[in-house]
Amino acid sequence: MKLFRYIFLLCSLTTFADNGSDLWLQYNLIRDQTVRENLIRSFDVIVLDSKTSRGMLAATELQTALKGLIGKKLSIVPFDQNKNFKNSILLTDQSKDSKIGSEGFHISRSGVNSRIEANQDRGLLYGTYAFIRHLQLMGSQAFDVIENPKIKFRMLNHWDNANGTVERGYAGSSIWKWFELPYRMDPRYIQYARANASIGINAVSINNVNASSRFLTAEYLEKIKAVADVLRPYGIQVFISVNFRSPRTLGGLETSDPMDPRVRKWWKDKTDEIHRYIPDFGGFLVKANSEGEPGPQDYGRTHADGANMLAEALQGRDGIVIWRAFVYNADPNGDRFKEAYEQFKPLDGKFDKKVIVQVKNGPIDFMPREPFHPMFGGFYKTPLAIEFQITQEYLGHATHMVYLAPMFKECLDADTYMKGAGSTVSKIIDGSLVDQEMSMMAGVANTGSDENFTGHPIGQANWYAFGRLAWDHSLTSEAIANEWVRMTLTQKPEVASKVTDMLMQSHPTYVKYTYPLGLHHMMGEGHHYGPQPWLEKSGRPDWTSVYYHRAAADGIGFDRTGGMSNALSLYAPEVQAQWKNPDECDLNYLMWFHHLPWNYKLSTGNILWDELMLRYYSGAEEVQGFIEQWASLKSEIDPEIFDNVLGRLQIQKKKRCGGEIPAICTFANFQNSLCRQGLLHQREHWMMLKNLRKFIIYDKVQQIVSSIFNLFSASNAIWFMPISLDYLNQRSKAAK
Amino acid sequence: MKLFRYIFLLCSLTTFADNGSDLWLQYNLIRDQTVRENLIRSFDVIVLDSKTSRGMLAATELQTALKGLIGKKLSIVPFDQNKNFKNSILLTDQSKDSKIGSEGFHISRSGVNSRIEANQDRGLLYGTYAFIRHLQLMGSQAFDVIENPKIKFRMLNHWDNANGTVERGYAGSSIWKWFELPYRMDPRYIQYARANASIGINAVSINNVNASSRFLTAEYLEKIKAVADVLRPYGIQVFISVNFRSPRTLGGLETSDPMDPRVRKWWKDKTDEIHRYIPDFGGFLVKANSEGEPGPQDYGRTHADGANMLAEALQGRDGIVIWRAFVYNADPNGDRFKEAYEQFKPLDGKFDKKVIVQVKNGPIDFMPREPFHPMFGGFYKTPLAIEFQITQEYLGHATHMVYLAPMFKECLDADTYMKGAGSTVSKIIDGSLVDQEMSMMAGVANTGSDENFTGHPIGQANWYAFGRLAWDHSLTSEAIANEWVRMTLTQKPEVASKVTDMLMQSHPTYVKYTYPLGLHHMMGEGHHYGPQPWLEKSGRPDWTSVYYHRAAADGIGFDRTGGMSNALSLYAPEVQAQWKNPDECDLNYLMWFHHLPWNYKLSTGNILWDELMLRYYSGAEEVQGFIEQWASLKSEIDPEIFDNVLGRLQIQKKKRCGGEIPAICTFANFQNSLCRQGLLHQREHWMMLKNLRKFIIYDKVQQIVSSIFNLFSASNAIWFMPISLDYLNQRSKAAK
Repeated sequence: MKLFRYIFLLCSLTTFADNGSDLWLQYNLIRDQTVRENLIRSFDVIVLDSKTSRGMLAATELQTALKGLIGKKLSIVPFDQNKNFKNSILLTDQSKDSKIGSEGFHISRSGVNSRIEANQDRGLLYGTYAFIRHLQLMGSQAFDVIENPKIKFRMLNHWDNANGTVERGYAGSSIWKWFELPYRMDPRYIQYARANASIGINAVSINNVNASSRFLTAEYLEKIKAVADVLRPYGIQVFISVNFRSPRTLGGLETSDPMDPRVRKWWKDKTDEIHRYIPDFGGFLVKANSEGEPGPQDYGRTHADGANMLAEALQGRDGIVIWRAFVYNADPNGDRFKEAYEQFKPLDGKFDKKVIVQVKNGPIDFMPREPFHPMFGGFYKTPLAIEFQITQEYLGHATHMVYLAPMFKECLDADTYMKGAGSTVSKIIDGSLVDQEMSMMAGVANTGSDENFTGHPIGQANWYAFGRLAWDHSLTSEAIANEWVRMTLTQKPEVASKVTDMLMQSHPTYVKYTYPLGLHHMMGEGHHYGPQPWLEKSGRPDWTSVYYHRAAADGIGFDRTGGMSNALSLYAPEVQAQWKNPDECDLNYLMWFHHLPWNYKLSTGNILWDELMLRYYSGAEEVQGFIEQWASLKSEIDPEIFDNVLGRLQIQKKKRCGGEIPAICTFANFQNSLCRQGLLHQREHWMMLKNLRKFIIYDKVQQIVSSIFNLFSASNAIWFMPISLDYLNQRSKAAK
Repeated sequence: MKLFRYIFLLCSLTTFADNGSDLWLQYNLIRDQTVRENLIRSFDVIVLDSKTSRGMLAATELQTALKGLIGKKLSIVPFDQNKNFKNSILLTDQSKDSKIGSEGFHISRSGVNSRIEANQDRGLLYGTYAFIRHLQLMGSQAFDVIENPKIKFRMLNHWDNANGTVERGYAGSSIWKWFELPYRMDPRYIQYARANASIGINAVSINNVNASSRFLTAEYLEKIKAVADVLRPYGIQVFISVNFRSPRTLGGLETSDPMDPRVRKWWKDKTDEIHRYIPDFGGFLVKANSEGEPGPQDYGRTHADGANMLAEALQGRDGIVIWRAFVYNADPNGDRFKEAYEQFKPLDGKFDKKVIVQVKNGPIDFMPREPFHPMFGGFYKTPLAIEFQITQEYLGHATHMVYLAPMFKECLDADTYMKGAGSTVSKIIDGSLVDQEMSMMAGVANTGSDENFTGHPIGQANWYAFGRLAWDHSLTSEAIANEWVRMTLTQKPEVASKVTDMLMQSHPTYVKYTYPLGLHHMMGEGHHYGPQPWLEKSGRPDWTSVYYHRAAADGIGFDRTGGMSNALSLYAPEVQAQWKNPDECDLNYLMWFHHLPWNYKLSTGNILWDELMLRYYSGAEEVQGFIEQWASLKSEIDPEIFDNVLGRLQIQKKKRCGGEIPAICTFANFQNSLCRQGLLHQREHWMMLKNLRKFIIYDKVQQIVSSIFNLFSASNAIWFMPISLDYLNQRSKAAK
């Protein structure tokens, strides 16, 4: 009944203005009358052949969707092989088709013949959402599609804390109302579950990887159970992030050594206790010996020792252990790029069968662009999960429009050459390359308490795209964007196409005005919003900016081909060959691997310095272009969504310094940094130091606030553009 | 247009389920057909006699309300003295009636004759909301009412921080989206403004009194200006809480000494700058030399010196300075009860005319029940504002149902005997007793980002009641509750009466199970939720519990009649006479003023120990009663609201210790504390120490988390009931 209420609420909402809370599940009336009437004629009844409540849920969702899409409420009747229903949509989880896996489905529509077939009720649910999507995208055209997910665990990682905050969350506070659970159940939990189910997400780790032991107390297990009970009908399993020190914190033991029998017993007992609350418990997600978190190395043990102990506690259950590979040590002479690889490589083959190692897409930390992580391609015996970040920690938080699918795809489609050409990252993580049963794609969620779940309306597209890619990584970014836009913003193909173009351009643009040519890790300390390339001192050397850009009199960039680090050697020879020569290296990765003189001539014809500048400045200009493109769609987009996006685009292209100069430019700060190092004072670009320093104060204030509260601010960014793009273009032409 | 969209959105929302976001402005169709038809017949057109946009806003609000209440959309036509409109509602701000003040109104309805008259457009707006309220409450009955607000500044104090958190906020994050402002304007700002205007709130301080200097930067002034622009049409002025150190932090001065000409100039310039953004800027709210905040005493100056400097900066403007009297020093031998009085008394008469001193309702800090603050009754030359706390810092956060109006009224109606009998607190703060022009009632807001603004649906009633009392402190708590319930939850008088009864009982019940007989300040450290009477050490002695309850072998309570402190002497002799004799003192204030033996015989016939126990235990029982009462209304209340309140009531009456014993009882902890002091081991109530200790661990963990994040948790509470109420009742009877 609650589901119904919520759905009706959502439908009623869309009548006048859209606050975004219905996500891509709006089910608005199809505007094309011919299509609508065609569909009305072909749908009279929903015939359900399923014995489970999940099957009933699928039928109900379809009923709701059709009520919205074609304005006709179909009744749901049980399947009866003796009856012949006309114009029916058959939903069955009793198909025995061997082409359909446990979560797969076969959907088809041709004239009056519509079927959603699956072998299990999960597949039926996914098939139903796919059927609805096909109606929205294909109208009354026929279709006949069999789909199975390419990856087994399609998972959101919530970095949500017990106190209601979200680490790196930019959409309000946590969606989990810990202080109300389990007594009051927020209706939004259901909406969240529907959204995930509709894109095939089947797993959720509910709390921050910087985990409080509190989540393992009976008090919190009761709360987590309540959430699990809401998510279960939607096919979503719950995982818990655990603090490795819990046996000491909660159990009163004097050690958390994974080899200690008391510790092992504690985890076994705790695991049994969890299963009393959540019989289908997904398992543990662990960040250990990373950024100050406790772990097995505290006791002289390895990551494998720690993970295997937890796996032991889960023996006889379905649950698994997800062990994060995001580890690095504070070695000023080392290269953080290499450290996860070097720590984990000797452990390949030493993990229990229940363990999967979760690796971030790139070797540093969710930078706007990274080469794929060298662990992909280096592990033959250990299944690797990939971890993407959907929340925009380094990508402008919830105030910059950045569609992330192209970034995800760049990694997924990258060729590791692990078993020769075609050994893409996607084939490693879906288990097909090395024939592993376990496979996983995880995304750090961008959801929060904001009405529209993601703060920036376009953030919804990133959640959507992550789910779609986890289901089928062969989909194109553009196709996914277009799906989302058409289900969320507009039914008109020509409008959808314009918005899709903006989304597709947004990530390249963001990279241009922040980290062009492979610059990385130059963001503001702590808050990670806006630039701070001059950061020289921090808690650890590899938390500074200078560690990464290595700007000096002789040039800029991190030579990882051997000069400053031999990190490139972690990749297959074919990959090394692509990147080792600066004249052949993809310019997007140039400074990931090379330290080059300021006047180094690039393949574009520009010297390095000018190319950097051009990219920064043209990125800034492109945001102005987004504003104009979006503004031109005013009459086509729901006014509340329109205003919301426009307002955020204006933040993205913030006017500062008196408001005269349209400005997005981290580059000026970079110049400033160089000036201070005495590298730039002979150049004509030396300027504005006084003005900039004023802004640096803001940044410092912001930084302190952010580190204390571990929250965020969109206000600290130092945008500034001292010279014109026209001038730069002229200069660039003159150089050629 | 945005207003319209939002209103329609709200209307559409209520069709199926109420998420609470429309507050008391639901404008649901009047169910009584006779009444509705009567009203439909009498309303044909809205005639507007106003030249201002605020007048148009009033007419539009009325139009929206009638569309909802009677389902008829009236047109709005300009007043024309040559035309005779039938069945019209005349809205005019051109009345010259001397009985109507600048914010007052005269509303009347009799048959087909309806008028809303005011001298200014603010009064017209308030009159319109009053007219709508009268229709909702009186149906088609005639009315003829003149109202003027009793208090000039009716103000919400937001304790909202720049990072999006709210100090002592329990309804999500801040409603102000600092990172989006001024570019994106959340439609909720308008809903917030409407709600305030509808109850007469005309002033808002926008940020935490523990103020960041950041709010005075150009960056933030731009944001505050954007909010002020939204609130202005609704008659709401914006104030800013300022950090006294700002001349140093922002201005680069080496001092913030209020006597330093550079400092004075800095504030003058800053004030001018603020007015460029906000021409009708309300003024400054200052927490100085209080709980670590900077202030004039840092430079050997007085509160008056500091306040007068800010007043000087505002010379020639309408703005004022609100200086908080919430100050106290860490003197283990002193009594915090007296300190504000003692610091401010010598300054009476030394403040500039633009300054008002804001005093909390009681002498400590928003305890669930306090005697009125002794400053009320002691100041003849300085206008005093009263500060209530609407957010439930010490009253169960957003998970306990506590209707606060009776607590507010207890203070407002208290007689200070300042000028003989009848010198109530309300007459002091409305300026009538000492004939002051400036008057103010402030409430610390309980609003946040939650859909329904206040987290607990009943929290809305506290916001509503605060506004209504600020407008007219002679209203009864019960009448206000009834208004709110009928506009928000039900149109049925018999249902409204039941809910009103619950609200009226809720505060006495809360006091019983937390701080009976005048016990105070025994809450958990930092988070202020749940009990921690054993707290002996903290950053300051007056932040502990033992400082206040003084439990010892010889008895319990704080003797302020001279034994431990002479605080009672701060009151007028008549007040002293009421409270100085323990046998005559109101039992609700007993331990505020007396230290009594455990077996002291009270007027109830019980010894002190048993009376305490009875109150704790019967308070717990009463919550069970609320649950039953509320459950009986299931069919009468919107299902989403019903579930929400029921869930929170269940938290209020949390089951712990195995779940067998219905339990709300802070008393067990108190016993525990006594046991540890060796006071109770001879008694039959000695018990459960081991069990309790387990819970104390949670409390500590929670406390650390809360102090770091300055956030809240509803999870730490240590509810426990070791013995039965039946047993206690028997014992009590036996004693008599």
